[in-house]
Amino acid sequence: MMLVIALGGNAFAKTGSRVGSPKDQLEAVREAAVDIVDMIQLGYRVVVTHGNGPQVGLIAERISDSLSLDMAVAATEGWMGYLLVNAIEDEAKRRGLSTRAVAVVTRVIVNSNDDAFRNPTKFIGPTYREAEAIELSEVKGWVFKKDPRGGWRRVVPSPRPVSIVEADVIRQLISNGNIVIAVGGGGVPVINHEGVEAVIDKDLATQLLANSINADELMILSDVDYVYLNYGKPNQRPLTTIRINELRRYYDDGQFPEGNMGPKVEAAIRFIEGGGKRAYIGRLGKASELIKGATGTIILP
Amino acid sequence: MMLVIALGGNAFAKTGSRVGSPKDQLEAVREAAVDIVDMIQLGYRVVVTHGNGPQVGLIAERISDSLSLDMAVAATEGWMGYLLVNAIEDEAKRRGLSTRAVAVVTRVIVNSNDDAFRNPTKFIGPTYREAEAIELSEVKGWVFKKDPRGGWRRVVPSPRPVSIVEADVIRQLISNGNIVIAVGGGGVPVINHEGVEAVIDKDLATQLLANSINADELMILSDVDYVYLNYGKPNQRPLTTIRINELRRYYDDGQFPEGNMGPKVEAAIRFIEGGGKRAYIGRLGKASELIKGATGTIILP
Repeated sequence: MMLVIALGGNAFAKTGSRVGSPKDQLEAVREAAVDIVDMIQLGYRVVVTHGNGPQVGLIAERISDSLSLDMAVAATEGWMGYLLVNAIEDEAKRRGLSTRAVAVVTRVIVNSNDDAFRNPTKFIGPTYREAEAIELSEVKGWVFKKDPRGGWRRVVPSPRPVSIVEADVIRQLISNGNIVIAVGGGGVPVINHEGVEAVIDKDLATQLLANSINADELMILSDVDYVYLNYGKPNQRPLTTIRINELRRYYDDGQFPEGNMGPKVEAAIRFIEGGGKRAYIGRLGKASELIKGATGTIILP
Repeated sequence: MMLVIALGGNAFAKTGSRVGSPKDQLEAVREAAVDIVDMIQLGYRVVVTHGNGPQVGLIAERISDSLSLDMAVAATEGWMGYLLVNAIEDEAKRRGLSTRAVAVVTRVIVNSNDDAFRNPTKFIGPTYREAEAIELSEVKGWVFKKDPRGGWRRVVPSPRPVSIVEADVIRQLISNGNIVIAVGGGGVPVINHEGVEAVIDKDLATQLLANSINADELMILSDVDYVYLNYGKPNQRPLTTIRINELRRYYDDGQFPEGNMGPKVEAAIRFIEGGGKRAYIGRLGKASELIKGATGTIILP
């Protein structure tokens, strides 16, 4: 059984939209590795993906003279992939397993006609006050939007992933018994071997990868426990086990906010519609309970 | 036949010890890809490694609050590996080849007792004036040394590579027909799954990898045409084809300066002594001539 696990930002920082010190990152990743090795011990062949919003934003903020956004995404794949392989192998060793993990720099092809290039929506980097945001948009030409969680953040295009360049390689590595870290930060967006100034949604890239390699199950871990109906309203209700048709109905009704639960639910729906057997959406740190149905949302065909 | 190619800094920048703009990097890497694809067309299975002095120095300089030096090395593996896979596949496609290249985040085990931790010697990052260097060493605790090429640069420990964590994975990928980018920047230095604040010499890491995967030949490309005897003196003389015993004698005589040609010659000697069939040291852009013996230094058993 092959399981693809998508890690949210909280796998690398407990500091919200900030990156945190090297020590903070190591601690966060070490905790995330517990979930991953739990799944390995259950017998799954595991592929891990992850977000990179704060990290790619930091690189873009500090070194945009030398790294275009695609290069910055690639840099975060190296940086964060490295943290994951170390932490996973270390946690596995602690349990007497000789697990081998490998991080693959992954490119993802996007479409030059994607609407996202005309309407950037993906938040990256730190939160700014309005005056700072205005100044940066004048100096660097960046686009800013108000973050629903407060303050202003840079937004960049988030085109839809079309295909995973390294899918074959990832398949080879899995069948050789490796835990694979791939499509970090949604993968590096390219068109015909040329980088694109964009960041792909990591949940949609994860789903595309999962279907491309015929994964059996998909698990999306973040800092929320369930997919909720009427989220944030008095009649909020968590979804536990749900069939794809019912979930799609809620999705089409606009139940899930765009920058947040929307892409996760969409990824789960697409995964199942593309042949996946089961998808889980739940909280990082609870993978073992999630897989047993003791917490979180399970989506079935 | 398997060939490992080590790219010097000039494969990523024509700007000396500075990183250059994204456009500058793309142009430099595109040129380097010509040499690599030339070797692929000769029928070699190719593994590519590269240095990262200016790049890792830049990340360490700008984002040292969030990336320790090992994380910064890993970030350069993502960034620069990504540039290489794009450029190689693109150049191959131009020639009608469907070459597939993959960049692997590579860790290299070092020894905690290595003398290098007591005596840092590896230059990273930009060149500073003396006053700046003194200030930075006070503020950040960095160690600076005078660069023989002028100015002051940060130095970090450069421990010897002991083993390549990802060697098996790299072997798998090569035998599946992929061009592999590995041990970028000498690989990320680790001890027991923990990162170390150091940068490994890329030529020595390349040699260790080449022997670990039983490569037939090793090619070290940089901005010098030959290995020279009496370098920079009136009786300077280029070495063309040379047997390992003779080269070792010159090496033991101290003919090759430490921060420069020394590690390249040492890497070539170790490679041949470890079972390699042939090593080449020459100028980037001339791989085709180098492999025919029309330029550069060829080292034979």
